[in-house]
Amino acid sequence: MKFSAYLRQKVEGSWQASFDHPFVTGVADGTLPLDAFQHYVLNDSYYLSVFAKVQALGAARATDMQTMSRMAFHAQGTYEAEMDLHRNFSVRLGISEEQKANFRPAPSAYNYANHLMAVAYTGTLGEIIAALLPCYWLYWEIGERYKGVQSPEPIYQDWINAYGGEWFGELVQEQINRLDALAELASEEEKRRMEQHFILSSDYEYSFWQMAYTLEQWPYAEHVAVAK
Amino acid sequence: MKFSAYLRQKVEGSWQASFDHPFVTGVADGTLPLDAFQHYVLNDSYYLSVFAKVQALGAARATDMQTMSRMAFHAQGTYEAEMDLHRNFSVRLGISEEQKANFRPAPSAYNYANHLMAVAYTGTLGEIIAALLPCYWLYWEIGERYKGVQSPEPIYQDWINAYGGEWFGELVQEQINRLDALAELASEEEKRRMEQHFILSSDYEYSFWQMAYTLEQWPYAEHVAVAK
Amino acid sequence: MKFSAYLRQKVEGSWQASFDHPFVTGVADGTLPLDAFQHYVLNDSYYLSVFAKVQALGAARATDMQTMSRMAFHAQGTYEAEMDLHRNFSVRLGISEEQKANFRPAPSAYNYANHLMAVAYTGTLGEIIAALLPCYWLYWEIGERYKGVQSPEPIYQDWINAYGGEWFGELVQEQINRLDALAELASEEEKRRMEQHFILSSDYEYSFWQMAYTLEQWPYAEHVAVAK
Amino acid sequence: MKFSAYLRQKVEGSWQASFDHPFVTGVADGTLPLDAFQHYVLNDSYYLSVFAKVQALGAARATDMQTMSRMAFHAQGTYEAEMDLHRNFSVRLGISEEQKANFRPAPSAYNYANHLMAVAYTGTLGEIIAALLPCYWLYWEIGERYKGVQSPEPIYQDWINAYGGEWFGELVQEQINRLDALAELASEEEKRRMEQHFILSSDYEYSFWQMAYTLEQWPYAEHVAVAK
Repeated sequence: MKFSAYLRQKVEGSWQASFDHPFVTGVADGTLPLDAFQHYVLNDSYYLSVFAKVQALGAARATDMQTMSRMAFHAQGTYEAEMDLHRNFSVRLGISEEQKANFRPAPSAYNYANHLMAVAYTGTLGEIIAALLPCYWLYWEIGERYKGVQSPEPIYQDWINAYGGEWFGELVQEQINRLDALAELASEEEKRRMEQHFILSSDYEYSFWQMAYTLEQWPYAEHVAVAK
Repeated sequence: MKFSAYLRQKVEGSWQASFDHPFVTGVADGTLPLDAFQHYVLNDSYYLSVFAKVQALGAARATDMQTMSRMAFHAQGTYEAEMDLHRNFSVRLGISEEQKANFRPAPSAYNYANHLMAVAYTGTLGEIIAALLPCYWLYWEIGERYKGVQSPEPIYQDWINAYGGEWFGELVQEQINRLDALAELASEEEKRRMEQHFILSSDYEYSFWQMAYTLEQWPYAEHVAVAK
Repeated sequence: MKFSAYLRQKVEGSWQASFDHPFVTGVADGTLPLDAFQHYVLNDSYYLSVFAKVQALGAARATDMQTMSRMAFHAQGTYEAEMDLHRNFSVRLGISEEQKANFRPAPSAYNYANHLMAVAYTGTLGEIIAALLPCYWLYWEIGERYKGVQSPEPIYQDWINAYGGEWFGELVQEQINRLDALAELASEEEKRRMEQHFILSSDYEYSFWQMAYTLEQWPYAEHVAVAK
Repeated sequence: MKFSAYLRQKVEGSWQASFDHPFVTGVADGTLPLDAFQHYVLNDSYYLSVFAKVQALGAARATDMQTMSRMAFHAQGTYEAEMDLHRNFSVRLGISEEQKANFRPAPSAYNYANHLMAVAYTGTLGEIIAALLPCYWLYWEIGERYKGVQSPEPIYQDWINAYGGEWFGELVQEQINRLDALAELASEEEKRRMEQHFILSSDYEYSFWQMAYTLEQWPYAEHVAVAK
C-alpha cells in the first residue's frame, strides 16, 4: 500500500467529520450564515499567507532543483488562488481594507499556521509535504463531493467551484506523488513524524470549520486586534 | 512607564483568570483531582523541552556574548528544573517510562509550543523574550500568591514551593529587565509584535490550566499516541 | 541618492576588477581555456542551486503575498536559467553525469553560497535582496558591456548572450527597485548590514572568476570529492 | 573503528599542516610577529561569538533534554573562554575598544563562521557536532603537543596553556563521544555529510592560521570596516 493510501485510512474519522460539518454542508445548501463565511474568509486569507511561506520553505529544503522549482511554483499558485478567490469574496462580502488591516487570526487559524511553521523550520521536505497535504487533498475531496451541487447562495457556489477544477486536482496529485516518493526514501522515524503531521493537520482542518462556524475568538486577547 | 509594566496591564484579565482557575485554586486547597495534575505534568514536561529549545534559539539570536551566555544558562536551568520537579512528580504520581515514551502533547500544549517555535525561528530576541516571559512571570506571581499556603496534598505543596523561591524570582526579574532593555531599542513595529506575543502567550497559559483540568484531547487524533 | 546608487558607487573597485578579470575578458576574446570554463560551469551550477534556495527563503521572509510570489517566481527562474544554460554547456563541454554527481564545490563557490545562506537564515528580506543583488546586477552589466561582441568560441558567445537579454534586465531592475523600497523602510542598522552584504557579495563575485581561472581547489580536502 | 577515529585519519594531512604552520610554531618559539597574533585574536573573538551561537543552535536541535543542556553549557563555556583569554590578550596587546567595535572579520574567519552557520541552520545535530569538532579537537592536540614548552613571549605562553588543561580535554572528549553516538544512529547519507563538514572545518582551521600569518584582508572590501 502506498504511504498516501495508508495515511488516508488513518484520517477517515476526521475527514468524515469535516465532510459532515455544518459549515461545509451549510455552504452546499446555502444555510450557512454569511458572518461565519466572512470569519472563514478573513482567517483563510491569513492561513494562505502562511501556507505559501511554508511551500517556499519547502522549496528551500529540496535537494534537487526540479522539486525546488515546483514547490516555488506552488507557493506562487497559492498567491494566485488567494487573489482570485478572496479579493472576489472580500468585495462581495463587503470586507473593508481597514477590517483586513486590523484583522488578527482566530486561535484555530493561528495554531494551524504555527504547526506548519514549526514543521517547516525543523523538519525534512517529506515532513513539510505531509503537513501541507491535508489542506490540498481534503479540499479536493470536498470539491469532488459537491461537484454539480447548486448552492442557493452564489458566493458559496463560487467557493465550491474553485476546488472542483481539474487544474487543482493535478496540483493535489503532484503533492500526493511527491509524498509517496519521499516516503520511500525516509527512515521509519521520519515516516512516523510524517504520519503525525498529516494526522494533526487533518484535525486542524476540522477545527478550522468549527472556528468559522462558532466565530471563534481568543479567550482573553480581544485587545490584540486593537493593539496594532 | 516601562514596557514590562505596560504589558502587565494589558494581560490583567487573562492572568486574573489564571489565578482564579480551578486548576490553580485546586492545587492550593488540595481539591484538584490527581489525574488532572498527571495530565498537567506530562504536558508540562513536553512544554519545557520546547521552552528550553526556544531559550537556546534566543541565545543564538543574541548580538552580544553576555546575553548569549545568559540565555544558554536559562536553557540549562529549564533542564535542571524539569529534572528536579518532574522526575520527582513522575515517580510519586506513578507515571511509567512507557507512558512518557508514548506520550503525545494535548492540543493546548502543542499549540503553545508551536507559538514559541514560530516566534523563535522568525522573530528578534526581543520578540522571543516577550513570548517566553509570561511563563516565567505568571508562575512567579502564582508562587508569590500562594507562599505560606499549606496544601493538604504534599505533591501540590512541592509544586507551589518550586515557584516561590528567591532563585526563581531572580531569573524572572532578569528576563523582565532584558525585555525592557530590548524594548528601548526596538522600532514601534517590533514593539507591536512583542506585545502581541506576550498577550497570546498569556492566553496560552490560561488554556494550559484548562487543558489539564478538562483532560483535553485532540478531536480525532487519538490514534496519534498509538502511531509511534 | 537612491540606496542602490549609493551601493553601486561603493563597489566600483571590485566590479571594475570583475570587468577586467582575465576570465571575463577571456570569454569575450575567446582566449579563456576551456577547462577554466568547465570549472566555472560546475561551480556555477552548484552556486545557482543555493541561489534559488535563498530566493525561496526570501519568499518566506516577505511580509506581503505579492512579494512572496515574485521571490518564488525568481527562484523558479533560476531553475529555468540553470536548465537552459548549463544542460546546454554541460553537453557541449562533455561534462558527464558522473562528474556532476561527484562534484564538490571549490572554496570560493562554497564560501559565497554560505554567505548567502547565513544571511538568508538570520537576516531580513532587505538583507537577503542586498546579498543576492550583485549576482543579478553585475552579470547584467557584463551582458550590456559585451552586447554585440562576437567571441570566436561559440560556447562563450552563448554565455554572453544569456545575460544581455531584455528579459534578464527586467528581473534585475525589479530587484533593484525592491532593494530601494526596502531600504526606505529600514533602520540605519539594517541599512548598514545591507551595505555590508552587498559589498561582500561583490567581493565574492570577483573571487568566483578567480576561482574558475585558477582552477581553485581546497588546500587539503581533495578527498572530499571521493568521500561521497 | 569508531567514526571519530575514521575521521581523524581522513584529516591527517591538514592537521599536520596546522601543527607545522609558522603561526603555530612561531607561537611556541616566540618568533611570531605580534601584529599577526593581534589579527588572530580579533578574528578569533569574532569566530568564537559565532561558534557559541552554533553550539546554542545545536542545543535547539537536540532530541533529549540532557544533550540540549550540555550543548547550552558548552555555549556558555565558549563565552567564559572568550572572556578569560581575549579580554586578557586584548588588554596586553593594546587592542582598543574602538578597534574592536570597528572590526570586520577577515575572509577566512567569515567563511569558516558561515560554514558553521549554514550547517547549523540546515543540518542535524550530528552534522553540527561534526562541523564544530575540529576546532575543539585540533586545539586540544596542539595544547598536548606544546605542553611543557616555554615560549619566550609570555602572551604566547598563556595561549598555549589555555588549551592544555584537563578541563578543556574533558569537553573535547565529551564532544568526540557525542559524535560517535550520533554516528551510530545516522544513515549513510548523514554520515557522508558529517564527514564532509569535519574535513572542511579542518581545512578552515588551516586557513585560519594562514589568515593570521598573512594579515589576510578582503580583496576589495576594505571600505566595509569604515561603513559601520
